Amino acid sequence: MADNRTNQFHVLPSDQEATQLKRWQLTLNDIIFGAESPAGKAFDVILIVAIVLSVTAVMLESVAPIQQRYGHWLYVLEWGFTLAFTVEYILRLACVRMPARYAFSFYGIVDLLSVVPTYLSLVIAGANTLLVIRILRILRVFRILKLFSYMQEAEHLAWAMRSSRRKIMVFLYVVCTIVVVFGSIMYLVEGPANGFTSIPKSIYWAIVTLTTVGYGDITPTTAVGQLIASATMITGYAIIAVPTGIYTAELTQVMRTRRDARGCLGCGKTGHELDAQFCRYCGDKLPS
Amino acid sequence: MADNRTNQFHVLPSDQEATQLKRWQLTLNDIIFGAESPAGKAFDVILIVAIVLSVTAVMLESVAPIQQRYGHWLYVLEWGFTLAFTVEYILRLACVRMPARYAFSFYGIVDLLSVVPTYLSLVIAGANTLLVIRILRILRVFRILKLFSYMQEAEHLAWAMRSSRRKIMVFLYVVCTIVVVFGSIMYLVEGPANGFTSIPKSIYWAIVTLTTVGYGDITPTTAVGQLIASATMITGYAIIAVPTGIYTAELTQVMRTRRDARGCLGCGKTGHELDAQFCRYCGDKLPS
Amino acid sequence: MADNRTNQFHVLPSDQEATQLKRWQLTLNDIIFGAESPAGKAFDVILIVAIVLSVTAVMLESVAPIQQRYGHWLYVLEWGFTLAFTVEYILRLACVRMPARYAFSFYGIVDLLSVVPTYLSLVIAGANTLLVIRILRILRVFRILKLFSYMQEAEHLAWAMRSSRRKIMVFLYVVCTIVVVFGSIMYLVEGPANGFTSIPKSIYWAIVTLTTVGYGDITPTTAVGQLIASATMITGYAIIAVPTGIYTAELTQVMRTRRDARGCLGCGKTGHELDAQFCRYCGDKLPS
Amino acid sequence: MADNRTNQFHVLPSDQEATQLKRWQLTLNDIIFGAESPAGKAFDVILIVAIVLSVTAVMLESVAPIQQRYGHWLYVLEWGFTLAFTVEYILRLACVRMPARYAFSFYGIVDLLSVVPTYLSLVIAGANTLLVIRILRILRVFRILKLFSYMQEAEHLAWAMRSSRRKIMVFLYVVCTIVVVFGSIMYLVEGPANGFTSIPKSIYWAIVTLTTVGYGDITPTTAVGQLIASATMITGYAIIAVPTGIYTAELTQVMRTRRDARGCLGCGKTGHELDAQFCRYCGDKLPS
Repeated sequence: MADNRTNQFHVLPSDQEATQLKRWQLTLNDIIFGAESPAGKAFDVILIVAIVLSVTAVMLESVAPIQQRYGHWLYVLEWGFTLAFTVEYILRLACVRMPARYAFSFYGIVDLLSVVPTYLSLVIAGANTLLVIRILRILRVFRILKLFSYMQEAEHLAWAMRSSRRKIMVFLYVVCTIVVVFGSIMYLVEGPANGFTSIPKSIYWAIVTLTTVGYGDITPTTAVGQLIASATMITGYAIIAVPTGIYTAELTQVMRTRRDARGCLGCGKTGHELDAQFCRYCGDKLPS
Repeated sequence: MADNRTNQFHVLPSDQEATQLKRWQLTLNDIIFGAESPAGKAFDVILIVAIVLSVTAVMLESVAPIQQRYGHWLYVLEWGFTLAFTVEYILRLACVRMPARYAFSFYGIVDLLSVVPTYLSLVIAGANTLLVIRILRILRVFRILKLFSYMQEAEHLAWAMRSSRRKIMVFLYVVCTIVVVFGSIMYLVEGPANGFTSIPKSIYWAIVTLTTVGYGDITPTTAVGQLIASATMITGYAIIAVPTGIYTAELTQVMRTRRDARGCLGCGKTGHELDAQFCRYCGDKLPS
Repeated sequence: MADNRTNQFHVLPSDQEATQLKRWQLTLNDIIFGAESPAGKAFDVILIVAIVLSVTAVMLESVAPIQQRYGHWLYVLEWGFTLAFTVEYILRLACVRMPARYAFSFYGIVDLLSVVPTYLSLVIAGANTLLVIRILRILRVFRILKLFSYMQEAEHLAWAMRSSRRKIMVFLYVVCTIVVVFGSIMYLVEGPANGFTSIPKSIYWAIVTLTTVGYGDITPTTAVGQLIASATMITGYAIIAVPTGIYTAELTQVMRTRRDARGCLGCGKTGHELDAQFCRYCGDKLPS
Repeated sequence: MADNRTNQFHVLPSDQEATQLKRWQLTLNDIIFGAESPAGKAFDVILIVAIVLSVTAVMLESVAPIQQRYGHWLYVLEWGFTLAFTVEYILRLACVRMPARYAFSFYGIVDLLSVVPTYLSLVIAGANTLLVIRILRILRVFRILKLFSYMQEAEHLAWAMRSSRRKIMVFLYVVCTIVVVFGSIMYLVEGPANGFTSIPKSIYWAIVTLTTVGYGDITPTTAVGQLIASATMITGYAIIAVPTGIYTAELTQVMRTRRDARGCLGCGKTGHELDAQFCRYCGDKLPS
């Protein structure tokens, strides 16, 4: 983010690569990938509205009474959005220097997947339900809307998540083992007669119980079963401390190191608050 | 809180604005908005009792057997409280210097909304159920009762909440995306036959599952559905670490730096860390 | 715990007050309240076994099939334990200097309440179910068994709990308000036809939902109701961060200050680990 | 882990003990217990695949429709894996210097238990369900796969778990007491007519409620019962902060002090804090 670009595919007129794009491509690129010019901002606003509306339409289409009454309108809307997004996708391909790189980027794939289902539905009935993937398009808008401060917060969270990745993996492995063991024991204890019809289903029950979800679709009925279930619940209640502890510890670390950037020129001490302008130990001005 | 006033609408006789209020207004203001004089304290105690009783009455009225037996008394009580609160509201308006500013303040609106439903019920049947909004009036009492130390604790909590606001927003956005995606997948996998009658309902199921509430009113029955449900549960069980981590990290920070009352002699700014010896805004030595 | 006494009612022969007790009282006091002598330890072990057995007996008595088959034996056991505990209670009263102070202490009351129900059951049928209060007696044994290190851990936990008491109160007040508001809204939206038969019952539903328990005995069926329920769940899922954050922050503080006790005699720096014998800054021996 | 061995039973040719093993034993030991040579790695990969497949087979066997259709194949597979694991177990015994020490080690017992059930099923029908214990074998592979960094993460987690062990025990004791007390009260309040058929079952309900699992198989129906249930839920919702706080505080401590590998030149002890300059056991200067 050293330069003003909001997007890796956004080409500034001053860029070397700009010479490889025609004038109309540069203008289009600025509107579609940029967010600084009035046209670019307007495009972003229209895009977010279109995405939210199209996702809502897909959802409403799945509600039987609405489908029966407004099915025709929703069908028209769906094709309208699909055609608009198709045009947008083609334009995006047209105004980047390396279309292939865009096409295989995360957003390129999401953009493509958000129009394909409608065309597929001409061949396979019901394929258009897959259109809900369009919700992922909001990620694009989220990023574009110059919500830089939010991006930083998101980066903090993602950073802590990445730092705790390995610990979380170890934790999930332990959870899987616990769940398989408790599930199998319950299969032996309760048996098919009480709803624990197979080991996979018993493991499903163990997950429902350990995560403290507790649907109640399968519940132990024997005394021994309820005892083991109690052990599972208390285990689940206690070990939720583990991911929380991991993530909290990492996030605290990430947030603490935000301070460590600058050293005082006077006394050399670090650890000042981000908005401090003077050293709190010797009173010297801090480098900005 | 530099001066002794408990409320922004409390006018002290020494105040400049006091000259604009008549004698009876000043006395009334001290009783209603103040909490120092014996009369002010008595008023507060009567008010809290009245609020709690009136809310209890509204609740009891909704219980059919009680309504059948004591309906008449509750009706009388409701009108009694409404009239009393109406008088109180008018008196509050009468004894402040700027009635409009009070009327549009948070408490002013709550005070009004807590009497309107009863009058509305003369026109629209059942509107008096809205009287439960009176519970919000307790907030006023909470503030008045000189529970200053509790207010400070509450401010700490609110401060940490404000600091983590942006992170929580990012988290909620991610949760929404997960919930829409998992819900839609379940709609495809389980289908209307198994209770997942529409995408919005499936999303509702996903929220019930991800937040580990687990009503069990809609549960997956196919093997693939139970597999995806398990993934949703484990995701919910693991990512609850995120808001907890965010809030804990912020609260730890807020509580660690418990910025004290010391104001810098140079620039007058407060909010320095306890161990700071120099102002971080102007570099002046802080009073120890 | 400066002296070797395990209990405030334990009288050492060297105590001034010992002169006021007869020889047999001193011996008895040492056995019952002390835990150092072999007799004292044996008494503690027998007591814990008796307590656990008696609680188990009360529980088993409530299980219909067991009651039908072994009811007579359980009845005998119950009276046996009651008589034994009665004798113990009288002996405790007999061997302390100030029987009244013991009788009105927490353990004194628990000891009394754990025998009274059986006698009451002669007059009121079923009163002996109250015998489960005996489980609280284990607290006594817990404390006596010289588990000092566990007591310290418990004190840490209790200390953090006490420090965060006010914050937790504020949090609970907020939770109550949320629950009343959401419950009342749901009563309006869903109504008695969908199981939300009264405001108190709707508040009960809101508590079940907000705490992520989710029995599923009352569930929203209308679209609007499910939307509000979703909001409640996500609120509950997010604000669980608050008590956790409060407690974690306090506990971290409590555990950190464990280090701050000793200052190095050489360089004066503090903050050493509890088991450190030498200063980690200058290498000087630390005071023990 | 000072030397390159991945396992305490792995014997390097340079080891003194190697002289006590024959040449074929050394080769076999390197393949089975080692993970450095190509043969050792290939063995590990085959082993993990075999374990996962065998566990999957056991699970599928419990699913009635699959059992009916592919029962014969699964039976063959089961015996195939059992024989293979038996051979592996015998080879392990054959190539370690002290077979007894291996046989009674954790992994030795797991290895044995993962083959015994199949043989048992010849005598006792259904005993082969116990084969799910094979999942524990994955622990072995987990450790072998040179996932050293993961092992370190796991060690951090386990270390924090060990440090918080005593606190968690105190917490669990408190939870048990709460659960017994609330369960017993509910038994008195709701009674057998509403599903609370016995004290143990009521305690089971209290555990389901306090841990926020909330199956809904037993729910309070009386007003008083719902009030007490609400108290239980809010208690459970609030005290989940305790294990989380404990674990987070300990993990933060463990991760902050990430004790390094430096050994004191004076006393040889390790585990010093990263910024320590002097040994905290003997006061000697630490190597930087």
